[in-house]
Amino acid sequence: MRIVVTGANGFIGRKLVRALLDRRALPGADGAPVTITELRLFDMVDPVPPAGADTSPVHVRAIAGDLSDPAALGRLMDGGVDLVFHLAAVVSAQAEEDFALGMRVNFDATRALLEALRQVSPHGASRLVFTSSVAVFGGDLPDVVKDDTAPVPQSSYGVQKVMGELLVQDYARRGFVDGRTVRLPTIVVRPGPPNKAASTFASSIIREPLNGEDAVCPVPVETGLFVSSPRRIVANLIHAAALPPARFGRNRTVMLPGLTLTVADMIEALRAQAGDDAVARIRFEDDPRIRAIVAGWPARFETARADALGFQADASFAAVIQAFIEDEMGAPQKDTAS
Amino acid sequence: MRIVVTGANGFIGRKLVRALLDRRALPGADGAPVTITELRLFDMVDPVPPAGADTSPVHVRAIAGDLSDPAALGRLMDGGVDLVFHLAAVVSAQAEEDFALGMRVNFDATRALLEALRQVSPHGASRLVFTSSVAVFGGDLPDVVKDDTAPVPQSSYGVQKVMGELLVQDYARRGFVDGRTVRLPTIVVRPGPPNKAASTFASSIIREPLNGEDAVCPVPVETGLFVSSPRRIVANLIHAAALPPARFGRNRTVMLPGLTLTVADMIEALRAQAGDDAVARIRFEDDPRIRAIVAGWPARFETARADALGFQADASFAAVIQAFIEDEMGAPQKDTAS
Repeated sequence: MRIVVTGANGFIGRKLVRALLDRRALPGADGAPVTITELRLFDMVDPVPPAGADTSPVHVRAIAGDLSDPAALGRLMDGGVDLVFHLAAVVSAQAEEDFALGMRVNFDATRALLEALRQVSPHGASRLVFTSSVAVFGGDLPDVVKDDTAPVPQSSYGVQKVMGELLVQDYARRGFVDGRTVRLPTIVVRPGPPNKAASTFASSIIREPLNGEDAVCPVPVETGLFVSSPRRIVANLIHAAALPPARFGRNRTVMLPGLTLTVADMIEALRAQAGDDAVARIRFEDDPRIRAIVAGWPARFETARADALGFQADASFAAVIQAFIEDEMGAPQKDTAS
Repeated sequence: MRIVVTGANGFIGRKLVRALLDRRALPGADGAPVTITELRLFDMVDPVPPAGADTSPVHVRAIAGDLSDPAALGRLMDGGVDLVFHLAAVVSAQAEEDFALGMRVNFDATRALLEALRQVSPHGASRLVFTSSVAVFGGDLPDVVKDDTAPVPQSSYGVQKVMGELLVQDYARRGFVDGRTVRLPTIVVRPGPPNKAASTFASSIIREPLNGEDAVCPVPVETGLFVSSPRRIVANLIHAAALPPARFGRNRTVMLPGLTLTVADMIEALRAQAGDDAVARIRFEDDPRIRAIVAGWPARFETARADALGFQADASFAAVIQAFIEDEMGAPQKDTAS
């Protein structure tokens, strides 16, 4: 099986590549395991396999370029591809700042990728997993967002992601590409330093205290979030790739399950794991701009379709913290961590 | 006020142009009536003003071309535009037959039009009314489709229309173009000969008997439809153009109201209007292909947003038939007809 990962340099991309190298095989069209023979890592700057990973006997290729560049796309597709994880995207804040860049990367490149996959695989056998986001929802939402709630995006990022979902839906329905879209919850705990995303505090308030550093929380403790751990996201991406196409019925878009939590819930889980001293590292400084953005995100979901399709949420926020400690702080893995 | 109508040769385009020439003015940004000074009729083949219409003192210009052609779009936008009714589209069956054509006309041209409007009107003052369709809905639908029901299109036409809606939403939210989208119900009674649309029978079973001709109904009498008369559609398009932007809140897409009817309801209204002889002209010939398509369309809607915004449905199906007789068969207008 020849697999492409776009956005391979991102933190989810790197974790996914490692998980694929660990697995060595994925279910094929008939459900039987097929050995991964080739992994093509695609990103703007030279992507590299995760440090220390044993890549043999998988042929790992790094391809640098821009999906909007037909030559780069041609190199990526050369000889055909069986499965693409399409993670490459311009993040929310950047797409809001630069409309043309967001359209080009988040929408046009997705369209070009779908069309290229259709061309290299005339019978529509190529599989594509497209990552969308909880950010497609906004505006006047019901208390609980359900599978049939209309996305009314309040950001260009959200609009571009829904347009991508719709293309995936149509390419799949027409038999051009066996596409499937997963909408990701807010990912917590992200490794690395804080970034400019409005949601960055949700990782900071756990990550920094665990590292003995101070963190600022710009929203009140009663703020709700819908979250998933990076480890769970990677497992659900692989699950999305492995599902037989018929399981999706007439809708190729699935909102992934997650945990509905308040900031207070998250802090109590941190206290249970790391004690009062860790919690004392969190300082509350109200930021009306961030508070307003985060308050616009839905926190309560009913993900009946995803549940029926076998996607899973983290077992608890304690498990999310434990996974972060194991994966990012070098602690030994517990069997129970999700 | 300078107004553009794309798809001006279509039957809705022609009726809309006549209605605009009759009105002579539309509400401007502050709600006060602004005189229509210029009407630009755009279509692939030379568009002409409706026969017999008095166009003076409105300056009516016919511009032929393809919206995907930057030169044609440039001619259309020359000197600026205040309001665009964007009706031009490839119909459902054609977009299904020719995927690339549908993408180019239904999506890319809409995008090019939005971008051109943004360029000629740097402060986002240009208004755009985009026509979408009940065909955006499909798949596993609730009994009653509501304003927050997610569109899961089962046709390329539906996908392309939702992608256009999303662009209108984002261009409006960002202040690029004051866009608004209306989703049209099935339009009944269409004038002219039957076309290849799966819904063509819904007009045929009324129009042909009224003209003393035979009609074939390919679906059972209990089949449900959500319909609106051409006259009502035109009135609602003008209403959509006249609404102050703030009325739309954070969602620029509105499903228009209509009448939920079975084929049996429609036939009984025909009987009341034209008698048993007219009804005897309808022959039932089951067509499993058309039956399946039509059965996939939702017939029951709750259009609370449209109702609150002042859009209206026809008063009754008797009024729909009466409007057709007046508008297409030369009968004198009744005041009561909607």
